[in-house]
Amino acid sequence: MAIGVPMAQALALARAAQRIVPPNPAVGCVILAPDGRLLGQGQTQRTGGPHAEVMALRDAQSRGHSVAGATAYVTLEPCAHHGRTGPCCDALIAAGIGRVVAALADPNPRVAGQGFERLRAAGVAVEVGPGARAARELNIGFFSRMVRQTPWVRMKVASSLDGKTGLHNGVSQWITGPAARTDGHAWRARAGAILTGVGTVIEDDPMLDVRLVETDRQPPLVVVDSRLQTPPTARILSGQRPVWIYAASRDEARAAALEARGATVVCLANADGKVDLAAMLADLGRREVNELHVEAGHKLNGSLLRERLVDELLLYLAPKLIGSGLDMASQSQPGGPLTELTGALPLEFRSVEMIGPDLRIVARVAGRDEF
Amino acid sequence: MAIGVPMAQALALARAAQRIVPPNPAVGCVILAPDGRLLGQGQTQRTGGPHAEVMALRDAQSRGHSVAGATAYVTLEPCAHHGRTGPCCDALIAAGIGRVVAALADPNPRVAGQGFERLRAAGVAVEVGPGARAARELNIGFFSRMVRQTPWVRMKVASSLDGKTGLHNGVSQWITGPAARTDGHAWRARAGAILTGVGTVIEDDPMLDVRLVETDRQPPLVVVDSRLQTPPTARILSGQRPVWIYAASRDEARAAALEARGATVVCLANADGKVDLAAMLADLGRREVNELHVEAGHKLNGSLLRERLVDELLLYLAPKLIGSGLDMASQSQPGGPLTELTGALPLEFRSVEMIGPDLRIVARVAGRDEF
Repeated sequence: MAIGVPMAQALALARAAQRIVPPNPAVGCVILAPDGRLLGQGQTQRTGGPHAEVMALRDAQSRGHSVAGATAYVTLEPCAHHGRTGPCCDALIAAGIGRVVAALADPNPRVAGQGFERLRAAGVAVEVGPGARAARELNIGFFSRMVRQTPWVRMKVASSLDGKTGLHNGVSQWITGPAARTDGHAWRARAGAILTGVGTVIEDDPMLDVRLVETDRQPPLVVVDSRLQTPPTARILSGQRPVWIYAASRDEARAAALEARGATVVCLANADGKVDLAAMLADLGRREVNELHVEAGHKLNGSLLRERLVDELLLYLAPKLIGSGLDMASQSQPGGPLTELTGALPLEFRSVEMIGPDLRIVARVAGRDEF
Repeated sequence: MAIGVPMAQALALARAAQRIVPPNPAVGCVILAPDGRLLGQGQTQRTGGPHAEVMALRDAQSRGHSVAGATAYVTLEPCAHHGRTGPCCDALIAAGIGRVVAALADPNPRVAGQGFERLRAAGVAVEVGPGARAARELNIGFFSRMVRQTPWVRMKVASSLDGKTGLHNGVSQWITGPAARTDGHAWRARAGAILTGVGTVIEDDPMLDVRLVETDRQPPLVVVDSRLQTPPTARILSGQRPVWIYAASRDEARAAALEARGATVVCLANADGKVDLAAMLADLGRREVNELHVEAGHKLNGSLLRERLVDELLLYLAPKLIGSGLDMASQSQPGGPLTELTGALPLEFRSVEMIGPDLRIVARVAGRDEF
């Protein structure tokens, strides 16, 4: 289906809001007069702020335009429920909008077609479909959380062209160049949370925050730390954002020291005495994390892959050969090293782009977006 | 410098001849009348056949066009020597060509500007430069052999996205898909020779010929086989093309058996009792190999990289993760595993393209084309 210019513009507005909206979906809205004139446009504001439809209605009003009989193009079904804000449907109806073209239905079970119903009941013509695919992609994490109750898990890896993420002595800074690092921060910025492992915290003592691109929201940080070995002096604890530490058992002294530094300690053990990663993802879903951005070492990467919890790979390939070094992920196959190629984890390349001298590949685990 | 339409057309003609011309360079020629009409065009024919200029002159003649005062656009300096054919300069002068626009000078020391001199001496205007870069790239192997006296070494690798070329049990067929394999044959087809190691011959017993694309020239096959372990029954010996086996020492019985199968055995040992790879490349240069297409296992790949003999990587990345498996190359760093990232072999991405579901990356070892 052709998307059309107004919906494409609404999608662009939604895209521009991605960094500020979590845990809400990023939505854009464009209102056109019957003769095609632009009356108003808007996008979702930060949590608690107005939704896209209300912003577009206000924009039209501020320009002195009536929207009576106008068409609103919106990238997601207008909400019919009282959430953090009033229902957008009511605002559209009250303003006299004659027709709503929506990219697709809201996956939120509290909305689920009720928005369209309410609009139709009020005599507003409703069309659904144009831009559906792009609109869903834009909010893949929101759809994941609403439908699967878990975040969309995106694993970021920076490696040499021969697949090495570091040297045997642990040196990994910097395999990729400044442009790739900046791009990586842009992906961090849109995430609902950033996840790493305690090994990375201890070895690199990173901040894992968003610095290289502008943002006014720092995603919460998640640490997989079975034995609560995160040092209370770790730099990840020096920021203002929430830090959630998942442990397998609660050592009271360690937990208290970390909580004193503002961290939240969550115990979720599996049968092996490690953090139950699947349960952690469910818990992060309950914490309203849409996209989980993973920047971890080869061990945690391997565990997440082995348990088939990864949805997407964000891979920066540097134009260099390292030879012998660390792999992207260790023990990443459920039954140990493969003996047949059919056991390889199938991916699909989504996008391939040069970022400075490096190559960025977004590859999706085949079928993971079919929910 | 803008290339212009006639030179771009001459380059396209040259490109189309790449499979048939080795060891000659691929050259294209377009002849335009002073008013811009196309009078004739042509490209280098297979070894011993006419060069591009002669083909273009014949084309003009067959169309009944006079080329008196016309301009010939040619992607390489016209030859002035009697090689396998008569000098092209004389043919251009005899036909009354008024002006020659050449992309760049011939690197062949027997030509080296003499062609331009001879043309100018005969009153033909000569311009050099448009399309120089593309023309050199098209014949990078010919330039390498003429200037460095060694072939351009292109290493082909097919790996998973996590850089694994096979499983620990040796299984490597097929990591990439049919489109990538066909594309790989197109690169084999333009090569002056195809190189592999005896390990691959013994383990996979491949043909390593050109089957998936049309060609009427099968490049010679080169085997690195220090101890002459190539089985006389190997399939590589069943074709019509030359097979050159490089050994470190000559076991008479083995050598005789291989020679009885049509192979040529060349002994070139280094101090470690292995094949002297650098000396082998020099020998292949003497055998008029322009581009050497390497399809070998991780050991020979590692040796070639370690000795810094590789110019370019032709890498097919399959959208899958293997996890634990074989690397592209083993022991590929001169001093053993790196302890600092600055020791990584620097590359430059030349092209990145989807080939079916796989990704093809051409990456050049930084600075290797500066000769």
